[in-house]
Formats: sequence, C-alpha cells, structure tokens
Amino acid sequence: MNSKPITRYLTAALTVLALVHGGPAFSASTSHQNHNPLPSWNDGKAKQAIIAFVAQVTEPGSPDFVPPAERIAVFDNDGTLWPEQPMYFQVLFALDRVKALAPQHPEWKETEPFASLLKGDVKGALAGGKRAILDIIMTTHAGNTTEEFETIVKDWLAKARHPTTNRPYTDMVYQPMLEVLDYLRANGFKTFIVSGGGIEFMRPWVEDVYGVPPEQVIGSSIKVEYEMRDGEPVLVRLPELDFYDDKEGKPVAIHQQIGRRPLAAFGNSDGDLQMLQWTTAGKGPRFALYVHHTDAEREWAYDRESSFGRLDKGLEEARENGWTVVDMKEDWNLIYPHEAK
Amino acid sequence: MNSKPITRYLTAALTVLALVHGGPAFSASTSHQNHNPLPSWNDGKAKQAIIAFVAQVTEPGSPDFVPPAERIAVFDNDGTLWPEQPMYFQVLFALDRVKALAPQHPEWKETEPFASLLKGDVKGALAGGKRAILDIIMTTHAGNTTEEFETIVKDWLAKARHPTTNRPYTDMVYQPMLEVLDYLRANGFKTFIVSGGGIEFMRPWVEDVYGVPPEQVIGSSIKVEYEMRDGEPVLVRLPELDFYDDKEGKPVAIHQQIGRRPLAAFGNSDGDLQMLQWTTAGKGPRFALYVHHTDAEREWAYDRESSFGRLDKGLEEARENGWTVVDMKEDWNLIYPHEAK
Repeated sequence: MNSKPITRYLTAALTVLALVHGGPAFSASTSHQNHNPLPSWNDGKAKQAIIAFVAQVTEPGSPDFVPPAERIAVFDNDGTLWPEQPMYFQVLFALDRVKALAPQHPEWKETEPFASLLKGDVKGALAGGKRAILDIIMTTHAGNTTEEFETIVKDWLAKARHPTTNRPYTDMVYQPMLEVLDYLRANGFKTFIVSGGGIEFMRPWVEDVYGVPPEQVIGSSIKVEYEMRDGEPVLVRLPELDFYDDKEGKPVAIHQQIGRRPLAAFGNSDGDLQMLQWTTAGKGPRFALYVHHTDAEREWAYDRESSFGRLDKGLEEARENGWTVVDMKEDWNLIYPHEAK
Repeated sequence: MNSKPITRYLTAALTVLALVHGGPAFSASTSHQNHNPLPSWNDGKAKQAIIAFVAQVTEPGSPDFVPPAERIAVFDNDGTLWPEQPMYFQVLFALDRVKALAPQHPEWKETEPFASLLKGDVKGALAGGKRAILDIIMTTHAGNTTEEFETIVKDWLAKARHPTTNRPYTDMVYQPMLEVLDYLRANGFKTFIVSGGGIEFMRPWVEDVYGVPPEQVIGSSIKVEYEMRDGEPVLVRLPELDFYDDKEGKPVAIHQQIGRRPLAAFGNSDGDLQMLQWTTAGKGPRFALYVHHTDAEREWAYDRESSFGRLDKGLEEARENGWTVVDMKEDWNLIYPHEAK
C-alpha cells in the first residue's frame, strides 16, 4: 500500500468518517487498487472486467472519470443477489401465507389457485405464469397495514428454511455479489436494487444483508391507501398492482425513481435485458453483467428453459454487445458466505 | 471552535472527504452547535424549534438520538422552497409551452382550455382547478422523450422571467429554507423533495439549486414507455397521469419510494397536511413545520382563500398539535438569496 502522506491522511479521514457515519464509509477513489477486493472471484475475464471498469470511471485524471454523484449501479435481486430456485423465494413466502391464512378463508378450498395450493399441487397453481404468481402474491400480501406486513416478513424470514438446502433464505445470498456491492460502494457508487420482487418483501432485510438502504430499493408494488384509524394514520395495503418492475418496467422505474441513467447494471435473466440495454446505451463507459447459472452442484444450472429466471435473448445480446457473463461454476470460488473457511 | 485533536482530525477528515466526494460532505454530529447556522432566520420560536429538534436527535448520548441512516427530512417545493404565486411556476411553464406548441395544433383555437389560454384568458382556462391544470400539463409535457423534455425545461428556465419580479425563477428560492436544507444535511439528514409538481420539471435544476440529487426528488409523474428507436432505447412521455403526489398521495409516495417514515417534514399548504400527519405519527421525536405566507410586501400574503397553496385545515392542526408555523414576515430577515448584502 502506498504510504505517501496524502494516502495516510485519506485513510485516517475515512476511518473517522466510518465511525461518525456509523455505516459504510465513502472511500477514496483509489480503492480499486486494494489488494484483491473480490476474493471469492477466481481470476478471469469477469473479475478483470469489473475491476477495469471501476478503475476507468474513478481514476482521477482518467478521460472517462465520472463524478461520484453520477456513479449509480443497479442490481436485480432474484437470481442475481440470491437464488430463485426451485422458485422465487417470495412465491415460497406467498405459499406459506396461503397456508397461514387458509383457516380464515374456507372459500379457498373451492377457489383456484388456492385449492390446488392447499392440496399441495404447487405446479398446477402456478401454471398461469408470472402474472398468476403476482395475483397470488397480491391476495396473500394485502389487507394489512404496511407496518403489520413488515412484521410478517421479518417473522417468516426468521423461521422459514429453504426446501432443499434447509438454510435460512438470507444465508443464501451470493458472497461474490456481496463483494461487488461493497467494492462499488467503496469506490463512490450508490447501489440500488431494481427487482421484479415486491419492495415491501425486500426492504425489511436488504439493508442488513446487502447494505442497501430502503430508499434505494426499487421493485414491484401493490397500491397502498392512507387512512385514519382511531386518529392514527396508517397505510393499508390493497390487493391491486401498482407497478410491475420487470422487463420494460425496469428502465421505466429507474427513470421515475432514480432519474439518472446507471453506469453499471447487474442481472441474470431476460427480465433484466431492458435494464442492461438502457444502462449501456448511455454516453461514455457503461458496464453490464449477467450472472449465468452454470453450477448444478453448488447452486443450480439453468438458462433457456427455466420457468424462473429464464435467460435466452439476454445471452445472445450479451455475446453481441460484449457484456460480461459470469460463469458461476468457473468464476466463483464460493457461492454462499457460510462456505467461507 | 473546539481545538481538541479529535475535532481537528474530524475537520481534516471532512475536508478531504468533500474534495474526494465532490459534493456536500457528511459532517460531524456536533454541527448544530455551529455559530448561527440559520443566519436568515430572526431569533424566535421557529428558529429555536428547528435547532432544538436537530440537537435532540443528533446529540450523541441524547435519549432521542437517531442514527444517521434514519434521518430523513421531506420538503414540499411550491410555496415551501420557492413561491407559488401568481400560480405554480410549472403552470407558467405549461402556458408558455401552449404558446410554443400552438402553431403545430391549429385545433387548439377551438378546444378548451387551449382556446382560452391562447386568447390570454388564463383565469377561465384554469377554472377547472388542480386537475384541469394537470390535464394542461400532461398535454404540453408529453409526446417527447425524457431527454428532450429535460432540454426543454432547462432552456425555459434559462430564459423565462417571473411575471411580477422579472427574475429568473431559480433566483426566487427561499434563502432561509436553503439554510435549513444545508443545516440538516450537515447534521447527517438525507433531504428529499416531496412535491405535487412534476418530477421531470424539478430534476433538471434542483440538484444545483437545492443540493438535492434527482434520486431524492419525489413528485407527480406522467407515464413513460420504453421504446426502441433506430436501435437505441428511449423513454417516451405519455399524456397519462402516473401518480399525483398531493394530499394522501404524499405519505403514499414517501412509503413507496423512501420506505422510511421521515423524522421531519416541511410544507406550506393543506396539500402537505397528510405528509405532516404521517411524519409526526411516528415513534420518538418528530418535527413538522408550516411556512405561512404572511409577507405581502416582500413575497405574498395568503392562506385560507388562495387558489394556489391554500392553507386552512393545516393551520388548525398545526395549532392543535404544536407544529412550528413560520411567520415569513416576522421570522425571515430575507426572502431570496439576491437580497443578501
């Protein structure tokens, strides 16, 4: 490490800042020179591409230097920061909600998709695709206040276990992507989640797990209504779609809620394609990365044929445009944080 | 100023940070002790209330200490950060757009509200109230890409002059409120605008003028659509309301886009009432402030009877709940930055 006075000064400054701020410190623009900032990444094209891009836009004096305020990075969640198999984790949450709510809804025994779900026929109930899933989600996610729902999500996450790994869902985040989030933030990037998942399903835990504050979480949403209950204002969740943050919806949400075009976008499916197109169509250097699920042993291997996280057209465009494609099996030396020794 | 080593170290750290970051540095939690942080405010209840609240939530060791990540402050724009007389400035922009677009729309000569507007009968055209205004805004604001619209707004702001002061609109921001924005940020608050005005009308200038980045601007919006034009993705603005950020809409937007309840809310009209209610209903100390337009000489004096920025019910609730009410005439020793000597 450089030991020039300015470097020492800077390090001291950032240490103090971290103490004062109580959160991840904004760090020097030379952080990308840190020794191995992405330890869970094997040396290879993907890792090199990430590091080279960060250097290109943050090196003072670089012709492609971008001021910190404009360093926006957007991340899909399902399949990009945590898995989406055997199905989106939020769907698994919704299925548990159906079971929990069933005693209050005797009519569900004869109403689809609930009847199939309650008989254990998940596949039949989900045959209607993403929109059908959203309908199930809306029914099981509405009718309570925003604060009640937050508690329901937290309680579920504390107890629920993944059907095949038997681990808490929040243990199943990708360690290499946690490192990318940290690395970008250490280089002055503001990291956002832009997910097809529900904002209120993500916000209760993503700050602790990913270091992304709630105001930087963009996702699908249902409508909420302001109401006075016993003189206290509450926001009540309605069974009505507000915004579906997938495909063309992603650049739209990025524009409406961030208002700047990202410098870098990370996804894993065709649902992220428009977000990557929109990002890379900006002027100057831009970065796009697809996580390709190639590791059937440590995670899952799927792309063109998958019901969840289908990656087909995106893979073609990545090849045509020279986007970075992560081969999970080859590029990541570990998948989950608990694998670290 | 304290000259203990830790203070000097901190000051050095923050100076470096400001250089590296290129933006306003996050500063120490003792900033509220700075000598007179609100120089355009006369000493009085309003100023004292602001300073006391900031001390209460930021003093280390205070029983009401709030971590920086949760220090969210929300500001209405029209009538709170800049004027809204003789009508919302965005309406004045829309009227200029009607004139500019009229040659391409011969049918407007016989269609209301355009026919009245083109004859100079602004009052008649706006008789339909806020919703009618939004319709005019949508018609004049749609049909272009988001990047084209940004240019239109910037060009207009550079040339347009206020009908009575003859000043550029962005010169007419309230100096005392700029000081509040700075003061809160210096104490670790994240400042958001939550306005009934259009997000795309505000974003091109509020970062320079208020120091609020685009991702912290919440407002009304029209729908945008993702489209490929000659192989390049664009977002096209549609003449359709996406979200109307007024009254009950404000707490809804705060929830959907910020996801945390603010600690402090600043408004000036009944359109801000629900935002202030929602803010102050949170646990622990909260702060709510109404700017009351009482200065007919230096600005405008209006409340219960005004078409723009009507303040009636809000004034009652402020009295009942002990919210801070700024008497512009008494509390502010100057209104606009150019009045400073």
